[in-house]
Amino acid sequence: GTRDHPPAHVALRDRLLATVVTCFKRHGAAAIDTPVLELRETLTGKYGEDTKLIYELQDQGGELLALRYDLTVPFARYLAMNKITNMKRYHVAKVYRRDNPATTRGRYREFYQCDFDIAGQFDPMIPDAECLKIVHEILSDLQLGDFIIKVNDRRILNGVFAVCGIPESKFITTCSTVDKLDKMPWEEVRSEMVGEKGLSPEAADHIGEYVQLHGGLDLIEQLLQDPKLSQNKLAKEGLGDMKLLFEYLTLFGITGKISFDLSLARGLDYYTGVIFEAVLLQPENDHVEEPVSVGSVAGGGRYDGLVGMFDPKGRKVPCVGVSIGIERIFSILEQRVKASGEKVRTTETQVLVTTPQKHLLAARLKLISELWDAGIKAEMLYKKDPKLLKQLQYCEDTGIPLAAIIGEQELTDGVVKLRDVTTREEVRM
Amino acid sequence: GTRDHPPAHVALRDRLLATVVTCFKRHGAAAIDTPVLELRETLTGKYGEDTKLIYELQDQGGELLALRYDLTVPFARYLAMNKITNMKRYHVAKVYRRDNPATTRGRYREFYQCDFDIAGQFDPMIPDAECLKIVHEILSDLQLGDFIIKVNDRRILNGVFAVCGIPESKFITTCSTVDKLDKMPWEEVRSEMVGEKGLSPEAADHIGEYVQLHGGLDLIEQLLQDPKLSQNKLAKEGLGDMKLLFEYLTLFGITGKISFDLSLARGLDYYTGVIFEAVLLQPENDHVEEPVSVGSVAGGGRYDGLVGMFDPKGRKVPCVGVSIGIERIFSILEQRVKASGEKVRTTETQVLVTTPQKHLLAARLKLISELWDAGIKAEMLYKKDPKLLKQLQYCEDTGIPLAAIIGEQELTDGVVKLRDVTTREEVRM
Repeated sequence: GTRDHPPAHVALRDRLLATVVTCFKRHGAAAIDTPVLELRETLTGKYGEDTKLIYELQDQGGELLALRYDLTVPFARYLAMNKITNMKRYHVAKVYRRDNPATTRGRYREFYQCDFDIAGQFDPMIPDAECLKIVHEILSDLQLGDFIIKVNDRRILNGVFAVCGIPESKFITTCSTVDKLDKMPWEEVRSEMVGEKGLSPEAADHIGEYVQLHGGLDLIEQLLQDPKLSQNKLAKEGLGDMKLLFEYLTLFGITGKISFDLSLARGLDYYTGVIFEAVLLQPENDHVEEPVSVGSVAGGGRYDGLVGMFDPKGRKVPCVGVSIGIERIFSILEQRVKASGEKVRTTETQVLVTTPQKHLLAARLKLISELWDAGIKAEMLYKKDPKLLKQLQYCEDTGIPLAAIIGEQELTDGVVKLRDVTTREEVRM
Repeated sequence: GTRDHPPAHVALRDRLLATVVTCFKRHGAAAIDTPVLELRETLTGKYGEDTKLIYELQDQGGELLALRYDLTVPFARYLAMNKITNMKRYHVAKVYRRDNPATTRGRYREFYQCDFDIAGQFDPMIPDAECLKIVHEILSDLQLGDFIIKVNDRRILNGVFAVCGIPESKFITTCSTVDKLDKMPWEEVRSEMVGEKGLSPEAADHIGEYVQLHGGLDLIEQLLQDPKLSQNKLAKEGLGDMKLLFEYLTLFGITGKISFDLSLARGLDYYTGVIFEAVLLQPENDHVEEPVSVGSVAGGGRYDGLVGMFDPKGRKVPCVGVSIGIERIFSILEQRVKASGEKVRTTETQVLVTTPQKHLLAARLKLISELWDAGIKAEMLYKKDPKLLKQLQYCEDTGIPLAAIIGEQELTDGVVKLRDVTTREEVRM
């Protein structure tokens, strides 16, 4: 479930992380860092059915600790502990889950999360729109192919549940059942609702009419006219904000990739408003035109109640955030690199310092020291008298573009011969 | 013992880590990554007296796990598991110790280590010299003030113990007592040797004559002539290599900061050859000329036996490595920043998109979207109608250098007013 990452892996991952962090910084986020270890009680009651996946440590002298499950709950605790009411931050770090790892789908027990969050009381939907813009920028920058960002609102879902006659105590559990609609057909979701969750068949069918809808501004307008839903205060609020969100996304020029999708529920307990999830699309094959989803690569939403849970006086700080699923993206790009046969360089060495004759170790050591001091990335073989062929072979194996050659003649003349490893061109300088 | 890191902290730390990683890459190292969780048995028996500081996890279904204590043992396990006999790698990551944290001295239960290691069978002392060059480069690049790098060799120490009549079974424990010489006077170390460790007073005194010596090539030559030490095979080997090391360090031009110091022992069990430690120096006060050490900021050494402990057939891979004590360095630089009153920027935002009148949110959203798409780091206030003064104040508070101002007139003219926040100069463009 955990694994070592060899150099080719880390080199590619660092490239991905750099793209993500560059985007987070472009949006003015500051970085914070919280410990891997949290008090167990900090994590309990935040993750719904997933609480059982939390890694627990042995009793450390009265302290019951656990490994963090995500970066959102520690962020909320951080805000509350430090009485911060206003912050835009990113955090790129590993989280831990005692899951049965599905390693082929890029799921492990230890994996990176890349989070961007905006905390504070602001005018509605401006920060929410920025989160969606960020997802759009990152997925475009990474050139992952076609994608769609599904958007919904917990208030709309709760409104739907209410008008379908579901008691409020069953909203969260119904939510996590709806959330399975991306992995199983409606019939199965319906039977879980009726069988396991105890909803009436009529209520389930009624829910089904709503949660299978998706569209854009037109659908928002249509639901705002829906005689039952428009009577529900929560749903009306959510639909009004959804309309505002689409206005802002139009100004950002990204509505082409956004789908208002009532089946989107997201499993975590702490969401309170807008929720969203980005999925990559792939043409199924040449005969079928409909693209199929190859999995979620980013998600997030608004969680206005979480910070208050850590504040002794319950003071709330509204928050909205996005998490980029870097491990999933990594698996896809890794497969692509493999298929293309591209060789990922694992070092950045610019020049190998070489000697063509024996007894020239001192000359190599002096030259490489000068290169390092000048900030040039340089290597040499750790042998007293390596063969020139071996040295040049090392350049080819590792992708070092230049060899600096110093022999007796060069030492006498006070020059260095620089060889382009690929073209074999040489200059003395 | 663990702590949150606010933005100003992370910004400064990232600056330090970037310097360290740049140096590691300059020397051609590739990055690997290993999990925070290791099997408990991997870690036991490697850290001498510090084994009690290892954090243990609850039984995870038959797997007894622990949090890594350093990055060296996981690296050795990685080499053995993957049958790698040759590698230059760096790893920057957090490690965990159940220590009583001395937070004023920059010691915590969760902290970064920055390691560079060279594994492989090579001609003697070339990789070892490179490790010392790396320490020299990093401490110079960070401009931490004067420093000295103490060097010794476990073989020389063991030779000293042997000629002083200590049985081999007591070498490691004697070593960890000698290691305390940088924190307590010889008299106390001597009494621990005689009292707790059970050495004879004569043997302890004899050891004392050696371990209080320090110098350069002259001292190496002197010890090579020492009638007893030169008869000891291990000591002779170590002294011969030490001489070679000083030759290479002379070619690197860094012997001015290197001290061959027989009191240096280093506590960890796994060292087998050269060991070293860098300490920062500080003039004690104006009256005393002798600089005093303000603590160790880097250390390392050769551990030729560790990989073999993880190989089922015991195959050895010689290794030498260095660890940069980034947390200690951080405390020093943090104090310096505090004293200077310098304000560390926590974001990199280049421009704030502002409007001077009401009802211009759409204009701001359109402009900021264009800036982001052009790769420019931009922010705006998340308010529909913020006051211009508030917006400019935000620039001053966060150090954003430019404000892009669009009002009715600019929209009509199709231009943007760009304002330098410090000089208040404005241009329309």
